[in-house]
Amino acid sequence: MVNNTIKNILKASGAEALVTTQDDLRFYLTGFQSSFGVVVADDKSVTLYTDARYLEAAKKSLENSGIAVAEYPRGTKLSDLLKGYKSLAVPFDRITANDYKAYVSAGYELLDSAAAFKSAMAVKTEAEIANIKLACKATDKAFCDLLPQIKEGMSENEVAALLEYLMRKHGASGTSFATICAFGANASVPHHETGDTKLKFGDAVLIDFGCKINGYCSDCTRTFLFGDDKKHGEFKELYEKVLTAHMLVKEQFTAGMTGKQGDAIARDYLGKYGLAQYFSHSLGHSLGVNIHESPNLTPTDESVFSNGMVFSDEPGIYIAGKLGIRIEDTVTLANDKVVSLTDSDKKLTVL
Amino acid sequence: MVNNTIKNILKASGAEALVTTQDDLRFYLTGFQSSFGVVVADDKSVTLYTDARYLEAAKKSLENSGIAVAEYPRGTKLSDLLKGYKSLAVPFDRITANDYKAYVSAGYELLDSAAAFKSAMAVKTEAEIANIKLACKATDKAFCDLLPQIKEGMSENEVAALLEYLMRKHGASGTSFATICAFGANASVPHHETGDTKLKFGDAVLIDFGCKINGYCSDCTRTFLFGDDKKHGEFKELYEKVLTAHMLVKEQFTAGMTGKQGDAIARDYLGKYGLAQYFSHSLGHSLGVNIHESPNLTPTDESVFSNGMVFSDEPGIYIAGKLGIRIEDTVTLANDKVVSLTDSDKKLTVL
Repeated sequence: MVNNTIKNILKASGAEALVTTQDDLRFYLTGFQSSFGVVVADDKSVTLYTDARYLEAAKKSLENSGIAVAEYPRGTKLSDLLKGYKSLAVPFDRITANDYKAYVSAGYELLDSAAAFKSAMAVKTEAEIANIKLACKATDKAFCDLLPQIKEGMSENEVAALLEYLMRKHGASGTSFATICAFGANASVPHHETGDTKLKFGDAVLIDFGCKINGYCSDCTRTFLFGDDKKHGEFKELYEKVLTAHMLVKEQFTAGMTGKQGDAIARDYLGKYGLAQYFSHSLGHSLGVNIHESPNLTPTDESVFSNGMVFSDEPGIYIAGKLGIRIEDTVTLANDKVVSLTDSDKKLTVL
Repeated sequence: MVNNTIKNILKASGAEALVTTQDDLRFYLTGFQSSFGVVVADDKSVTLYTDARYLEAAKKSLENSGIAVAEYPRGTKLSDLLKGYKSLAVPFDRITANDYKAYVSAGYELLDSAAAFKSAMAVKTEAEIANIKLACKATDKAFCDLLPQIKEGMSENEVAALLEYLMRKHGASGTSFATICAFGANASVPHHETGDTKLKFGDAVLIDFGCKINGYCSDCTRTFLFGDDKKHGEFKELYEKVLTAHMLVKEQFTAGMTGKQGDAIARDYLGKYGLAQYFSHSLGHSLGVNIHESPNLTPTDESVFSNGMVFSDEPGIYIAGKLGIRIEDTVTLANDKVVSLTDSDKKLTVL
């Protein structure tokens, strides 16, 4: 018995068999997490081949799932598991040049499964959204726990480590990406490398963080003040602009609009105040099993968004050497409207 | 001015220019960490192209390095940055089938840079070993801090989270892989997924953990008892066998031996006691920028090991549903002999 997700991807790919070796795609197809394995699926059966490290756990986890589990025999070539097939679907944006050349020289007709995976993974099932909600809740709770524990003299690394610990305490299996914590002018680098800078009174703090639960990601950014040294007039003005841009997207973006239209809601608003030049990245990206999926909310993405998609709404303003402000929630489209999945307070916090 | 590492990889690849888009390889070439960019190097110049998120930081970090930094123009095709070259070296085990097809159809002669990268990265420079030592020290210190904080009723997730927090407190920028924490029989799955199992008196605990500092990894596993419920006769006997196998590798493995010979030191010793069947993985793997590099210590790897290589020594015994024991240190070869870089106590600990 082949489940519908696999059946649809196989059908959309147009090959006899779907061959999937990538960790994230294997997990998407089977629900079993491992760092080695291959899923071979045709219209009659699905088998996960994996090694001794995972065999016991895979068998237990996939009992009654309709997915058979078998040991990947040591030293076996992948092509030995694929005998009898003429055409195979593999993701051309993920298999390596070596893999590609090996399949071609073994005589297989190769078809690309990448688009079928992307389109399947873009619209989340209820079970997937439930997992993303769990990750978002842990993210929110950890942030609330963090705020009163932030003290003068802590380093960016310490704050990031404490936040990651709190996410784990609230049930996360790990982070969905390396936490970004930036104090003061460090925040003007959108992907600042968290370091040894110490927190001092009057610093603005930008934290971009997220975690994974049951294999699904959350993503959130908050910017706040550690004490108000009365020099924050411009910061406060810009913060309100970024927050309004963020909220306008939530109010105006709907199912049926394109990623480009979504990005324009924030970019046009900031542009009215001459701030679009400081918004140096896109508005948002899809997320799920991976922290970056598609479609995206960029100035060029013409993809139409639909209910069940999960993505980030993260406008930002960066003035080199001076300040950086980003406000981000993970959101989903439900009943045509944007619903926030991370939702800790976004009013400017002054600790 | 092109640095020697880049010069050697370019020369070994035999192409006019080296084109490197992979995060880890880009970091290896430039020392600058980012999640987007491409390094284009010929025998006269090296340029890192990256986007607005990293531009400011890259320019600062690579000042006076001989590596130019330029913005990757939005919407540009990679081939536009490569005009004038006839032959390019790219890693065939990392570029995608799509990339491969695009280069080929753009008319480039493509050469494989993978072997040149692997061979360069296998032998660490003094600066690289210094960074790995920092990561190993933080790993050891965090483990020592952890032991007295382990209490009955804590979950695997909590222990893992606390250990990760402690590694960050000791200077790590993050983990080098998702920490594995397994209580009791869970340890019989070598790559157990850390979960909600609660610690109880008499449990054996296996923790496989490591962190990154300045972009370099550490890797360590310890197995110990949380209280001695007097039912651990077999466990203690097997623990001594695994520890002896681990130590024999340190005593007997030398520069000039192959990975296969290293693996055999541990496997043959365990085999004398009929335990080789329970040693279900390889003895070890190289590590550095990545947690899994090459060469490896496996039953089949004929690579000759040399001074400056850094790898894991991690024999283990797993009896399904019953117990798992693994003892691992990160080690290096210096003056032909094995030197331990992680080195917290390996005598059986009973908390």
